[in-house]
Amino acid sequence: MVESYRRIVLASRPHGWVTEENFRIEEVPSPQLQEGEVRVRNHFLSLDPYMRGRMNDAKSYAQPQKLDDTMGGATVGEVVESKSDAFAVGDTVRGMLGWAEYGIAPAQALQKIDARTIPMSAYLGVVGMPGMTAWYGFHKVLEPKAGETLVVSAASGAVGSVVGQLGKIAGLSVVGIAGGPDKCRYVTEELGFDACIDYKTAENAKALAAMIAAVAPKGVDAHFENVGGDVLNAVMTQLNPFARVAICGLISDYNAQPGQVPRSAILNPGLFLVARFKMQGFIVSDHLNLWPQGLGEIARQVAEGRIKYRESIANGLAAAPAAFIGLLKGENFGKQVVRLV
Amino acid sequence: MVESYRRIVLASRPHGWVTEENFRIEEVPSPQLQEGEVRVRNHFLSLDPYMRGRMNDAKSYAQPQKLDDTMGGATVGEVVESKSDAFAVGDTVRGMLGWAEYGIAPAQALQKIDARTIPMSAYLGVVGMPGMTAWYGFHKVLEPKAGETLVVSAASGAVGSVVGQLGKIAGLSVVGIAGGPDKCRYVTEELGFDACIDYKTAENAKALAAMIAAVAPKGVDAHFENVGGDVLNAVMTQLNPFARVAICGLISDYNAQPGQVPRSAILNPGLFLVARFKMQGFIVSDHLNLWPQGLGEIARQVAEGRIKYRESIANGLAAAPAAFIGLLKGENFGKQVVRLV
Repeated sequence: MVESYRRIVLASRPHGWVTEENFRIEEVPSPQLQEGEVRVRNHFLSLDPYMRGRMNDAKSYAQPQKLDDTMGGATVGEVVESKSDAFAVGDTVRGMLGWAEYGIAPAQALQKIDARTIPMSAYLGVVGMPGMTAWYGFHKVLEPKAGETLVVSAASGAVGSVVGQLGKIAGLSVVGIAGGPDKCRYVTEELGFDACIDYKTAENAKALAAMIAAVAPKGVDAHFENVGGDVLNAVMTQLNPFARVAICGLISDYNAQPGQVPRSAILNPGLFLVARFKMQGFIVSDHLNLWPQGLGEIARQVAEGRIKYRESIANGLAAAPAAFIGLLKGENFGKQVVRLV
Repeated sequence: MVESYRRIVLASRPHGWVTEENFRIEEVPSPQLQEGEVRVRNHFLSLDPYMRGRMNDAKSYAQPQKLDDTMGGATVGEVVESKSDAFAVGDTVRGMLGWAEYGIAPAQALQKIDARTIPMSAYLGVVGMPGMTAWYGFHKVLEPKAGETLVVSAASGAVGSVVGQLGKIAGLSVVGIAGGPDKCRYVTEELGFDACIDYKTAENAKALAAMIAAVAPKGVDAHFENVGGDVLNAVMTQLNPFARVAICGLISDYNAQPGQVPRSAILNPGLFLVARFKMQGFIVSDHLNLWPQGLGEIARQVAEGRIKYRESIANGLAAAPAAFIGLLKGENFGKQVVRLV
């Protein structure tokens, strides 16, 4: 049996940028399995930008991460012990077992996944929470119509890459915003976006706005925001009347010092009146009832090769903190996961 | 016949605050009436915050006001000459004849109004564009439900006063924000809002947020914004999940210097994710098809005494510039009009 396992806990809360010192790796004894519970050996764990928000001790849509407790997060793995009729040893499952080699959960907190047609790690990305986030934001917040122009920031990321591909499938003209020529080439050549802007080549929001105007001469009807700050301020100047903006994430903010004016401040709300647009924040976990539909659609499109995805894979539990810090700095390329097996 | 009339033109564009020097009063000859046209003697002209935006030479939802041309705006008055079968001398009409004692319009640009049950000036306010703005924003943007909490800024103004009264009629708990104890007393005692906050007694947005929290302990579900800046930033911190914010105006911005960061900047867009709310700008002239329904409903409620209104009346055309500047500073109390007859 599993006598002990390694896990990563939150050792201290970051002020501004996360550092490796905010985490601690430790070996802990395995608890006994109770009736109705299942023990899982985690094969992959997911690293996601939302985790940065939970590291603060502040009101947010999620509870703060507890100090000295296992860092929370989604995982996929294999059942190694079961006291539930719902799962057998060898089943592949998705759960929220956190940054740890093993985890225990009640059966109802795990979902079986089919790792034969779609690789196990993809259930953390394109057919997991990030893919569902893209699906919900695109279909339910952006209300897209064929022929419209869609802009997506963090376009090569786990969420943005799916949003843009859903846009192309739905007949929109799609402009990505990403950091660096490699990501931009991937976005246009591999994912099929119509254009991609490398925001690192823009001096400021005004220059970025001009670059957007050049590739979206008919204006922007829908915008999917993962970044905020200059990106959002620039896109706002290009919105057509009655445009829709989905606020999915504001990663430009996540490392602000407490008390600082967020870098993501919206500098010209008067544009709300110029273009009479709608801006809406959303959290995919508010809409669990739609996950079967959304993930079913995406899984079919992935299996048919109509939706592509890419992963950044860090190896071994100890690599998780550095990989997470890299994610916050935009160093990943596609969905960031950690392989444990 | 009318040989000449006086009008006010835009003499220069303001930089920051509007001054009386930006306007010029002049006497001009009356043009001949053409076939299909109607000549109106204006009894009242409307002063509205949106006019400030048109004084800039900048992209907005409305065309800029032309220099040396009659200041545009809504008017009510009496037909004094008609070359249209649709109007007879003596009819009372509403039009967009601007800051002038007389005006000419094609018949299709005028609407007959019934000044017997509702005073003529009210067709510029509670049963005019401001009332319709309130109706559209309340019913179509805020999607209100009985029992929810509504906040309205500029609560004693032409628009805000109607929004709050519609809220009470629809069974919401309504909090007004207004400047000064007299306006606040009017909002609660005359208009029947549940509470009113005097924003002038708050040192900053944080203090204002605490004052809102005190009178809206269950949080805010819907917010109607006429002001922006500290008011909007404060209300945003008190929004409940899935709240709605209607951006009708941002009067805190209208006198910003060109190039300045607008005072209305939204400082913490992360709140879009905390409360997953929707913020939507709107312009009532986009929705002309709904005016008969909206104004019909309001007119009935005014006639029944269920919606009250108040006017600030300036006397004589020459008083218009000072009254308009006062409006931008919040010195008016209720709908600001200028009486010409």
